[in-house]
Amino acid sequence: MQSYKGYLIDLDGTMYRGSERIEAASDFVKALQEEGIPHLFVTNNSSRKPEQVAEKLNKFDIPARAEQIFTSSTATGSYIKDRKEHARVFAIGEEGLFHTLAESGHSIVEDDCDFVVMGIDRDITYEKLAIACLQVRNGATFLSTNGDIAIPTERGMLPGNGSLTSVVSVSTGVEPTFIGKPESIIMDQAIEALGLSKEEVIMVGDNYHTDILAGMNAGLDTLHVQTGVTTKELLSQYERQPKYSIASLSEWIPMLR
Amino acid sequence: MQSYKGYLIDLDGTMYRGSERIEAASDFVKALQEEGIPHLFVTNNSSRKPEQVAEKLNKFDIPARAEQIFTSSTATGSYIKDRKEHARVFAIGEEGLFHTLAESGHSIVEDDCDFVVMGIDRDITYEKLAIACLQVRNGATFLSTNGDIAIPTERGMLPGNGSLTSVVSVSTGVEPTFIGKPESIIMDQAIEALGLSKEEVIMVGDNYHTDILAGMNAGLDTLHVQTGVTTKELLSQYERQPKYSIASLSEWIPMLR
Repeated sequence: MQSYKGYLIDLDGTMYRGSERIEAASDFVKALQEEGIPHLFVTNNSSRKPEQVAEKLNKFDIPARAEQIFTSSTATGSYIKDRKEHARVFAIGEEGLFHTLAESGHSIVEDDCDFVVMGIDRDITYEKLAIACLQVRNGATFLSTNGDIAIPTERGMLPGNGSLTSVVSVSTGVEPTFIGKPESIIMDQAIEALGLSKEEVIMVGDNYHTDILAGMNAGLDTLHVQTGVTTKELLSQYERQPKYSIASLSEWIPMLR
Repeated sequence: MQSYKGYLIDLDGTMYRGSERIEAASDFVKALQEEGIPHLFVTNNSSRKPEQVAEKLNKFDIPARAEQIFTSSTATGSYIKDRKEHARVFAIGEEGLFHTLAESGHSIVEDDCDFVVMGIDRDITYEKLAIACLQVRNGATFLSTNGDIAIPTERGMLPGNGSLTSVVSVSTGVEPTFIGKPESIIMDQAIEALGLSKEEVIMVGDNYHTDILAGMNAGLDTLHVQTGVTTKELLSQYERQPKYSIASLSEWIPMLR
């Protein structure tokens, strides 16, 4: 079995389940830390700041620093910066998105936009959607942090950012560039941040349609863990299989030693 | 040339252009009235009450009573009533929709819904979209007043109801039944309200994709008028042509005499 020099790790379903602890996650990350194996947490969630995400992990006794959190907001800020420094951006989103866009040196404006960015916004309004449509029709580059169509909550599946994004894509006829998993944009940036080559990195996650496909799309080996959305049974129905699939991350700890 | 016994008439682009008068419209409708030819105004706009729409027409010196206004809200209320009396409905929309749903005897609720209805709502919130998704996933029948993807305004093209509806259809994977033009549901109801057979009725409108296709889908003859969205040049590109296309409704007045 190959020994990987770097790990990209999903959060919900892999490190925890909503507000519920996943037992093996803490031991797994501690083992990575003890062995000095570089790892980043890669999440489509654009709403929280890296500090807040690290704090949540720490509450589950999972060691993590803000610099190790790679959100779709982080990736979006960098993606824009690679194309234009100090860009004019109209953004729909929550705290995490506005924080990273500002940190990346962009300004938030409502006209003459270079980019329109959509991330999950539970304070969405018609006016925000209207400005996004007008700016996209006016030629702004249309980005969306992630295409997740639904978010699991205690109440059931609520609208995800991919479904909110469809208002603007359906109305304007312009498809956005999605940054998050399963697209490879967020993965390529995370691999670059690790400073490793694709052959040395493995992607770990529970969700076939986001995590595993993201790994495959970025040309990485993939480790599926059966603690979240995609069960062993569901997984068996897909044609392209992950390199590994395990019931619990505890099974993988011996591979790290 | 056939003499039609009933007319279905579009509003925006045919009777007026936004807040702008279309000269021939007034004379055309007055001629219909003088000749005693039954006619209804058929609009995808779900936001206003029939009384309000009639008032707007009167301001343009176009004779119209509330009973002659057939909005997508009216059609939605009737559509539900045909399937279930006193239905439990969760609705997203504006005054016109809530007015006609109440008038049709339905109650507006947020759980155990028989139907979820989406109409344009410029006070849309995430919570409304969340309830719609939960109720559709729970088995409520999903309706949408119309599929218009954009609304022309002074600011430019803003999101229409079809694009707002996509949040729920994309998130749940359930496609709604659209009631308005170009679907035939609203047309069939309007023809029934006229009390005439399809061969006796003609649909008049400016927009190929809504008005003319709606007429064709309902099996009616169609009269395209070149005062709105679909110009003569645009029209020539489509394979299925309307029965007639004229520059102005004034050309049609002699046919009514």
